Amino acid sequence: MSKPTETVPGLEPGETIERTARFLPKFGPDGLIPAIVSDAKSGNVLMFAHMNADALAATLASGFAHFWSRSRGRLWKKGEESGNLLKVRDVRTDCDQDVIWIVADVEGDGVACHTGATSCFYRRVTQSSTSGTVLEHVALPRPTGRG
Amino acid sequence: MSKPTETVPGLEPGETIERTARFLPKFGPDGLIPAIVSDAKSGNVLMFAHMNADALAATLASGFAHFWSRSRGRLWKKGEESGNLLKVRDVRTDCDQDVIWIVADVEGDGVACHTGATSCFYRRVTQSSTSGTVLEHVALPRPTGRG
Repeated sequence: MSKPTETVPGLEPGETIERTARFLPKFGPDGLIPAIVSDAKSGNVLMFAHMNADALAATLASGFAHFWSRSRGRLWKKGEESGNLLKVRDVRTDCDQDVIWIVADVEGDGVACHTGATSCFYRRVTQSSTSGTVLEHVALPRPTGRG
Repeated sequence: MSKPTETVPGLEPGETIERTARFLPKFGPDGLIPAIVSDAKSGNVLMFAHMNADALAATLASGFAHFWSRSRGRLWKKGEESGNLLKVRDVRTDCDQDVIWIVADVEGDGVACHTGATSCFYRRVTQSSTSGTVLEHVALPRPTGRG
């Protein structure tokens, strides 16, 4: 949500973060910005991670999604080991410029999740009459058009 | 990303956060979990916000997306003022159960962003030969099937 009165460095007087054509990504106090990745073909959300400024710059420069691995404390080219690189088709930012949305094709095996699932979001939160709120494993369809 | 050796409260011995059918959403130190909302019809990412436990519970109970408004410091039923409620069609969580993905229909005017845009992600990050990295305003298509 926006705070219209917030002063954003880099804006000219009269400009707002919502309307400017300047790319002024807002990194958090930890130097990170959230990044959503969705599949160019299916529209499914594939994964969610964080970028620091270097990861964002590497993503824009290379056309492949890079993140900051918080667990490993280093720049992380997604798929660098598995071959399941994320080929960037579109990069968006939101009204407040504090989130990045990447639309991508998954290369290699078409798998985005470390579990081997197509998407990290392979479980539905659902209500069970006996067990309350539980997770249901749902296989997301493989994107069409993959050879 | 997972930390397979991490002990997660609520798991039985031998269970992993990736495979369990137990819903054990992992809220951050601030009590919040990130939530992505995408459009059930178009697949576009509409918005990104945060939920606390109350917002998540209210979302599951009511079928309408609720968030924690960090700027207002209160539970926020999205669209409560505009009428552009988010009718929940599907709720997913990811491998680590630290992100929520909501698939929703936007009621009212079909507008998810406070700027009046269909989606908050109405700007493309693009390279200009003269200006470097800039934002291009792109009208996301209105979902089909809306009356």
